[in-house]
Amino acid sequence: MKTVKVGVLGIGNVATGTYKTLQLNREKIQKSTGVDIVISKILNRRPDVDRGIDVDPGVYVQDVNLILDDPEIDIVVELIGGIEPATEYMAKALANGKHVVTANKAALAVNGKMLQNLAMENKVMLRFEASVGGGIPVINAITTALRSNDFDEILGIVNGTTNYILTQMTDNGSDYDSVLKDAQEKGFAERDPSGDVEGHDVANKLSVLMSLVFGADIPPSDIPTQGITSVSKVDINYATQFGCKIKLIAAARKVGDTVECEVQPTLIPLTHPIASVNNEFNAIFITGNAVDDVMFYGKGAGPLPTGSAVMGDIIDIACAIDKGSAFDMQPVLRYDSELTFAGEGVNQYYVRLSVEDKPGILGKISSTFGNFGISIESMMQPKHSEIVPLLFIIHETKRSVLDDALADLVANNYVKSVDSVMKVVK
Amino acid sequence: MKTVKVGVLGIGNVATGTYKTLQLNREKIQKSTGVDIVISKILNRRPDVDRGIDVDPGVYVQDVNLILDDPEIDIVVELIGGIEPATEYMAKALANGKHVVTANKAALAVNGKMLQNLAMENKVMLRFEASVGGGIPVINAITTALRSNDFDEILGIVNGTTNYILTQMTDNGSDYDSVLKDAQEKGFAERDPSGDVEGHDVANKLSVLMSLVFGADIPPSDIPTQGITSVSKVDINYATQFGCKIKLIAAARKVGDTVECEVQPTLIPLTHPIASVNNEFNAIFITGNAVDDVMFYGKGAGPLPTGSAVMGDIIDIACAIDKGSAFDMQPVLRYDSELTFAGEGVNQYYVRLSVEDKPGILGKISSTFGNFGISIESMMQPKHSEIVPLLFIIHETKRSVLDDALADLVANNYVKSVDSVMKVVK
Repeated sequence: MKTVKVGVLGIGNVATGTYKTLQLNREKIQKSTGVDIVISKILNRRPDVDRGIDVDPGVYVQDVNLILDDPEIDIVVELIGGIEPATEYMAKALANGKHVVTANKAALAVNGKMLQNLAMENKVMLRFEASVGGGIPVINAITTALRSNDFDEILGIVNGTTNYILTQMTDNGSDYDSVLKDAQEKGFAERDPSGDVEGHDVANKLSVLMSLVFGADIPPSDIPTQGITSVSKVDINYATQFGCKIKLIAAARKVGDTVECEVQPTLIPLTHPIASVNNEFNAIFITGNAVDDVMFYGKGAGPLPTGSAVMGDIIDIACAIDKGSAFDMQPVLRYDSELTFAGEGVNQYYVRLSVEDKPGILGKISSTFGNFGISIESMMQPKHSEIVPLLFIIHETKRSVLDDALADLVANNYVKSVDSVMKVVK
Repeated sequence: MKTVKVGVLGIGNVATGTYKTLQLNREKIQKSTGVDIVISKILNRRPDVDRGIDVDPGVYVQDVNLILDDPEIDIVVELIGGIEPATEYMAKALANGKHVVTANKAALAVNGKMLQNLAMENKVMLRFEASVGGGIPVINAITTALRSNDFDEILGIVNGTTNYILTQMTDNGSDYDSVLKDAQEKGFAERDPSGDVEGHDVANKLSVLMSLVFGADIPPSDIPTQGITSVSKVDINYATQFGCKIKLIAAARKVGDTVECEVQPTLIPLTHPIASVNNEFNAIFITGNAVDDVMFYGKGAGPLPTGSAVMGDIIDIACAIDKGSAFDMQPVLRYDSELTFAGEGVNQYYVRLSVEDKPGILGKISSTFGNFGISIESMMQPKHSEIVPLLFIIHETKRSVLDDALADLVANNYVKSVDSVMKVVK
């Protein structure tokens, strides 16, 4: 049986999950592929720490070059995360003629094009199923079974931490702060949660998805991004009254020759399949011109689910090496479309205002909206007191136009404060 | 650019959908693959009928051998359906060294092993993404990205006709007969709907899925199968009161060294992701020992969604032909496990009985259940009249044990009639 040697960079959750997945199912993988995959070296700068896996201590190395320069290693698996030094290590591995598997959305979102070119120059594969949606095989589906489609739209819940927090706030009526603390204690959120809760992780993943789905090269820094830190229990309750849940959604769609996209808390109707995706689960909903709507659902994080995706890439490459066809495998990323970036799109919005409860105020607000070309789909005035909340779902408009209208309402003192603005998907 | 020629057998919905998908996206496919795929011949025994596609009449042939024996054709796409002559045609194509793509679950469920062996002997591919779940790329996911997993369980809604009927009965309170008639008028159900409504189509698909997921060789005739013809509005209403929907579910699970499976109407709790799969949509929910729960959702039928899946297989093979590696592609079906078939499993059940409303009857029924080792999870007695319905959700038991207990209840005249027995998934 052919042996394929793998070097792993990093020994965090995903690396231990990858190791465990191989350990669990090695015999089954050998039987179904005819290849023996061996993790021969792991970069582990703190070999004294117990990682909960049963590894021969001789496998651990502290010098990354012992992996990158090892002529016996065919596949380098980068699981350090972060842009650097991960990019540097992957680039060196590719330049050394090694196939690279990574789960690193941050490095891919910024340096994917460079790394992909380097892989093609050196006739090796760069694979990254685990970078979006953890164990969900969405990248594989888009780039293989669904590739007869021209895609129109992506709608994704691709961050387990924020989906866990929003689910707990929705189901248990808890506060953002207390749920975040609970999530940190359970290991669902990091001690510094900003990368998750401010939406940057989602923007990285959306950037990768847009290159796969549309062939568009849109860096995460260009994507209008808003996290969940300002989502309140109040809005979650009102969303329920509009028949919706609030989810942190990565959205992108093709409009003519442009791509519109945004990452933001979004009202999703309960009837939409993505609305029932709860807690640490992720889902990616895609629309193609032949397949129509498809959705992929599963665990977006966690050692074993993510390890499953990393191992899937390793097995694909190992089988291709075994058959001598690894240098012919299709590159995965494409940046080949002529679509231009159009920023945030035209959307429906939920707006929560505080107004003084006096006659005529609704007329003034409606007229102002009308002056800006904004039309109201529905309105709710939940209770009567001196200062009352006033809720609107408005029809498709540009966010910038809506913001101008809202500024005008405040300037004219028709509105005491604009408490919340969120996108609505129908 | 390399040209790969395709011969299509049949000119029904899936064939026209495949043709349209290629026509729609040919340029995009050429650009992303570097291969030009041409449908050079279509077997069409009634070329006078308008199929709504723009085909050069010279493409149509009436003799199947003009395709099977054409040395220029690399890929034969079998879209006739049914076991014969489809199997005979596929076997001849494989023997002639042609790759075969099919959407034919009936032929695969019965003859998959023979066809797969023939493909391997002749060093060609047999591919069938469209045979289960229409456009949903579930077969590809199981056999590639998820293949590092050992799988525990399958739960699927894999027939659009029956799911459409059950959804309409649930949402609109309609009768089975009137919804079936409506579905036939809309083209969602065939004039002879028995293959769908009696569950045979689902059993064929479950047989294919079990070979992919477990490596188990279980023909559809061995699968305990019950269709939806006996599902009533009454049971749908009571299911709602237990927090469940009734869906026609293909289920299989590994228990020790055995596989249990069954196809039957099943109560699914509203909180389960598969419960919100409505109308013509399909979903396949799979549990692996690394990835945990994953679900694939999309249109299980229709010309373009199914055409998307057929084209995905064609593109994969065409790219491999282009690179000279098509003979090395992994076979898809496996029948390599040592799992034995255990028939229908131990499940929870919903039971609806009619009883006379007299004191002590519930005690007698409970005691009888107890004598058979059956324990009750919940009981509901919805209304009072002379003959009343009595509803139970019972804990895990063998269906045969439950049937014995129910027969005993009737024999002892504790129960007037057993009106409904359905599996419950928690």
